[in-house]
Amino acid sequence: MKAFAMLGIDKTGWIEKERPVCGPLDAICRPLALAPCTSDVHTVWEGAIGDRHNLILGHEGVGEVVEVGSLVKDFKPGDKVLIPAITPDWNSVEAQAGYAQHSGGMLSGWKFSNIKDGVFGEFFHVNDADGNLAFLPDGMDLATACMLSDMVPTGMLGVEMADIQFGDKVCVIGIGPVGLMAVASASIRGASDVFGVGTRKNCVEVAKEFGATGIINYKEGDIVEQVLARTDGKGVDKVIIAGGDLDTFDQAVRMVKPAGIVSNIAYLGGGDYIKIPRVEWGVGMGHKRIIGGLMLGGRLRMEQYAALCKAGRINPAKLVTHTFNGFDKIEEALFMMKDKPSDLIKPIVIL
Amino acid sequence: MKAFAMLGIDKTGWIEKERPVCGPLDAICRPLALAPCTSDVHTVWEGAIGDRHNLILGHEGVGEVVEVGSLVKDFKPGDKVLIPAITPDWNSVEAQAGYAQHSGGMLSGWKFSNIKDGVFGEFFHVNDADGNLAFLPDGMDLATACMLSDMVPTGMLGVEMADIQFGDKVCVIGIGPVGLMAVASASIRGASDVFGVGTRKNCVEVAKEFGATGIINYKEGDIVEQVLARTDGKGVDKVIIAGGDLDTFDQAVRMVKPAGIVSNIAYLGGGDYIKIPRVEWGVGMGHKRIIGGLMLGGRLRMEQYAALCKAGRINPAKLVTHTFNGFDKIEEALFMMKDKPSDLIKPIVIL
Amino acid sequence: MKAFAMLGIDKTGWIEKERPVCGPLDAICRPLALAPCTSDVHTVWEGAIGDRHNLILGHEGVGEVVEVGSLVKDFKPGDKVLIPAITPDWNSVEAQAGYAQHSGGMLSGWKFSNIKDGVFGEFFHVNDADGNLAFLPDGMDLATACMLSDMVPTGMLGVEMADIQFGDKVCVIGIGPVGLMAVASASIRGASDVFGVGTRKNCVEVAKEFGATGIINYKEGDIVEQVLARTDGKGVDKVIIAGGDLDTFDQAVRMVKPAGIVSNIAYLGGGDYIKIPRVEWGVGMGHKRIIGGLMLGGRLRMEQYAALCKAGRINPAKLVTHTFNGFDKIEEALFMMKDKPSDLIKPIVIL
Amino acid sequence: MKAFAMLGIDKTGWIEKERPVCGPLDAICRPLALAPCTSDVHTVWEGAIGDRHNLILGHEGVGEVVEVGSLVKDFKPGDKVLIPAITPDWNSVEAQAGYAQHSGGMLSGWKFSNIKDGVFGEFFHVNDADGNLAFLPDGMDLATACMLSDMVPTGMLGVEMADIQFGDKVCVIGIGPVGLMAVASASIRGASDVFGVGTRKNCVEVAKEFGATGIINYKEGDIVEQVLARTDGKGVDKVIIAGGDLDTFDQAVRMVKPAGIVSNIAYLGGGDYIKIPRVEWGVGMGHKRIIGGLMLGGRLRMEQYAALCKAGRINPAKLVTHTFNGFDKIEEALFMMKDKPSDLIKPIVIL
Repeated sequence: MKAFAMLGIDKTGWIEKERPVCGPLDAICRPLALAPCTSDVHTVWEGAIGDRHNLILGHEGVGEVVEVGSLVKDFKPGDKVLIPAITPDWNSVEAQAGYAQHSGGMLSGWKFSNIKDGVFGEFFHVNDADGNLAFLPDGMDLATACMLSDMVPTGMLGVEMADIQFGDKVCVIGIGPVGLMAVASASIRGASDVFGVGTRKNCVEVAKEFGATGIINYKEGDIVEQVLARTDGKGVDKVIIAGGDLDTFDQAVRMVKPAGIVSNIAYLGGGDYIKIPRVEWGVGMGHKRIIGGLMLGGRLRMEQYAALCKAGRINPAKLVTHTFNGFDKIEEALFMMKDKPSDLIKPIVIL
Repeated sequence: MKAFAMLGIDKTGWIEKERPVCGPLDAICRPLALAPCTSDVHTVWEGAIGDRHNLILGHEGVGEVVEVGSLVKDFKPGDKVLIPAITPDWNSVEAQAGYAQHSGGMLSGWKFSNIKDGVFGEFFHVNDADGNLAFLPDGMDLATACMLSDMVPTGMLGVEMADIQFGDKVCVIGIGPVGLMAVASASIRGASDVFGVGTRKNCVEVAKEFGATGIINYKEGDIVEQVLARTDGKGVDKVIIAGGDLDTFDQAVRMVKPAGIVSNIAYLGGGDYIKIPRVEWGVGMGHKRIIGGLMLGGRLRMEQYAALCKAGRINPAKLVTHTFNGFDKIEEALFMMKDKPSDLIKPIVIL
Repeated sequence: MKAFAMLGIDKTGWIEKERPVCGPLDAICRPLALAPCTSDVHTVWEGAIGDRHNLILGHEGVGEVVEVGSLVKDFKPGDKVLIPAITPDWNSVEAQAGYAQHSGGMLSGWKFSNIKDGVFGEFFHVNDADGNLAFLPDGMDLATACMLSDMVPTGMLGVEMADIQFGDKVCVIGIGPVGLMAVASASIRGASDVFGVGTRKNCVEVAKEFGATGIINYKEGDIVEQVLARTDGKGVDKVIIAGGDLDTFDQAVRMVKPAGIVSNIAYLGGGDYIKIPRVEWGVGMGHKRIIGGLMLGGRLRMEQYAALCKAGRINPAKLVTHTFNGFDKIEEALFMMKDKPSDLIKPIVIL
Repeated sequence: MKAFAMLGIDKTGWIEKERPVCGPLDAICRPLALAPCTSDVHTVWEGAIGDRHNLILGHEGVGEVVEVGSLVKDFKPGDKVLIPAITPDWNSVEAQAGYAQHSGGMLSGWKFSNIKDGVFGEFFHVNDADGNLAFLPDGMDLATACMLSDMVPTGMLGVEMADIQFGDKVCVIGIGPVGLMAVASASIRGASDVFGVGTRKNCVEVAKEFGATGIINYKEGDIVEQVLARTDGKGVDKVIIAGGDLDTFDQAVRMVKPAGIVSNIAYLGGGDYIKIPRVEWGVGMGHKRIIGGLMLGGRLRMEQYAALCKAGRINPAKLVTHTFNGFDKIEEALFMMKDKPSDLIKPIVIL
């Protein structure tokens, strides 16, 4: 089969590869829509997971089942399905502890384009079909469905880790597609003010549509000072980091109240140490919690988040600024993600 | 001063009473707007808290501070303030355990028109002003402010106890004013489907505006069957009881999934035992949690819920269907609450 | 193979049955030690799960793997293993929601001697071996291991649902084997006073060894009054119900503080409605939470609870008052469990 | 009155000062026993809270009430009382949010020898007597009572923030008096293995008595490697930091499992940034939570922890290695705390 792959660090291309084999619990799907992710860019051009050869890229997509294993109970060929980026081993002790994304080791629930080939092929393999697929709801468009793989659950995770209480003030640092979903999620989780930090016009507009009550432009001054100015000097209850680098934690800790939470959903690509400022962290005693996680994955969350779309609580299709048609456009879409034209939030490819 | 009081069971009237005395931590306020509550009706015409003589009624209102005690730090005469129906003793061990509403004994945080005179007087007394008052935000209308005393926090509590997760399906039994706020709260807490059980036209309309995705009419058949029919036979994740009687728990347990939650915010006025059906409760092992509580009260929640209004997340003023003008209209408003004309949700009196 | 089975309601006997077949994810084990449970008595003599014919009984035991399916990764023939009474489907949506015991429907994680044959055979079948078995730790005696199937996890669950905080006062109603493990678990979970309600001499002694600070004898007066007397009239923070009937909930609610928890781990065999007293439940607003659950099952909990035994935190072997030798003694052990001689806590059969 | 005070950085001495004035909610106490704390050493010789002149030192002690304010309900002169090191303002919004220790600003619940004079005087002042004092239980020795001010609640906090589950493996870094109480608390909170990191002979002995299942000597090699070696390379579930410096977080993150918790109770005296290693923190996605807090303070915790002592669950008097007699011995006790002779855990002064 044909697939679009990482050939090595800094190098991508189309390859021919064997169609994946379906184990007893698994499904083989063909894509209906696909989306590249900033993580694909990290993987190829930053070597984030190390050098890889002929690794099929991609972990965001919606598909149709073409084959299922003998032990699969709920899905059959022809079913249209939502596919989470993270597909855990659900009987692992880590899953039993509530952290399936780390089944078999830290981050090991992340299999697509990491431990095995990704979804940018004519066919792709899904482990534990009953546990990891969900039915595409009737009437859901492919753009929405595609955003359910990673953008929605990662944004939601940022909010879940932030443990938002009714009326909390929240700052979301970074309003790319994941940050925007964090804005939307915070807005339907009971936050009052949601401040989005960013500057790109399209992103700012969508942030407001998604429920941001204020936009903070880092070009207009220190973001910590801006947040303090908008909160009577008190800071926000929760910060969600959806962009930036290791220094962003310094800002986050400075702008969050005592007993607040800093919740990270950004992939941290380089540097040695995350910086937590000692004094602003209450000399160790300020109860400012620091947490960072990978989306959980699996069927239940897909179903729950899809239900939110269906009920009209969130509208992730608004992230999609560029739509391509045809499998061969994956390359162009990925390079667009790499080059980030100013009007881009998220591209998808419809097959 | 003049006040409207319970004279005895089944009997109300205007009385003259001494203006309340301000202790060192307290405030004396005059009302700017007041609202009667179904609880006032229970108190007078059901004798819910026992017989009382010349007890000033009312626990919902917004006011202006006219006097503060010597230890009050944050408020001064002239400040316009939000006033929670529940005004706990914040240094009690119960408050330190997170349950201030039960400070000094079960439900003892409920002081207005219970342990002491209520707010339907020319002046009323607020214990622990710094802990229990909140500033009326600039630009907030009196109808919204008045709903923050009890309707909003009680509806919010129903949702908080239900521990809603993103995508949960929720059924709110009873869509009077408190149930409607539960609908609104569930909708901004991450629920997907929110079903409201009720029939009154005004209530149904507001329920939909507040985020209900479906209305269940108990006149059209068993509500348990209707809920199961709308959830593929699985039931809902959470049930909030905001109306009904002891038998309502039987219905709630039958319509909730294993590991779901039944969250009660209705005052249960009569009968001996709440009925939890043994078999549907999993013969004791179905993890269907039953909880019922009183709103917490206090300043922080007032501020947090007010922030939700200001950010446009909720709009409790829509509950107000009837507005009276003048202190002497309290009587009429209370009797309206008692008689419940079909177009009533909530009346208020502006002073 | 030979097995001891329920022949019909009120009737047990030895039968010949096919050795179970091992699916790709499963294991076949032979027992090393077995224990009858009060639930087996309910199943046979109360028809608790309905009439059944030739259903092999038993869900408590420790075994040796004799065969594994092709997809099993961690276990192989010859491995000695702990076996939980509850063996969930870990990829189900219920498991993903944290309630694996209800995978596929309420209580459906309970498979042994319910949905399929139990462990009282020469061989027995374990679904999802990697997810549900745990290695028997070096040096662990069979009595301890056998108590890890059900007695330990059910007692622990009672305490986990009770959400005990450091210093909480706890009452455990019923100090049979499960109640005793609840006493032990509460004592190592941070409770201060743990009151055990019971009278049998052996049980009282073990309760004290396990950390009970007081014993309440229901023959000496109303247990609610006794609990109130020992807590300055305030009641306990948490109640764990490990025995009794539907009326026990009435007592539990009366003896628990506002905002306390009533945590049920008893199988409720008969009657229609659990009785929650309206007034003592705070007319619906007392925050007295009612919860009842089935042990979770699965590998992680087995490992965690086994680690507690190994570290010397609990010593469940003390529950075993009667030890039989030989597979054919299962019948005698079960009838002993049924007849409950006064010195019995728990019998086991060593093979 | 006579008091022992910080005269300036690096300088202590006896001073004469006015007896403190009792506000309406307050109490004045005289000490029955006192203990110096490492924090006093930080305050004087590291200038941790800045330069101060004639600030009376001390925040650990047990006392007798000699005067109460007019609004105090529960205490009267002659009552013997437990006194928490942290005495919050319980009606503050921070307390209402569950973080009373930060009432009025980060760490502002810490008043003794910080915002006001400490307890090393002939008399000392306690704000909000009803909310912050607890009765000395009958029969409790003064050493135990004195350890309830800070050592016990701080150790308990470390365990509470670590959210220990039954069977968790825990590493406590630092087994001075606070770390030892963390060892004891973890052992009664359901941990299986508790590893204590330290070398001092007395501390090692008490750690074992308090429930440590292993001791890790940092002189014998890298502690991360030692922890991994004892946990089959998997690491521990939770780490409690009760000593060390900013680099200790690097070690803690390396030794904790994905989805584990690093819980800090050490005062961090110097340096700019806490070091969280990027890669071992899962490139931002490993769910290794970092939290650090100040003990909560207040009456309820005093009562709950005292109940644990009374029930025999913990025995903090074992921390006391050196007992002095007479108020004038405070100086010697403090210098002992500063000089830390090898056999010291904690000194107290009995008056």
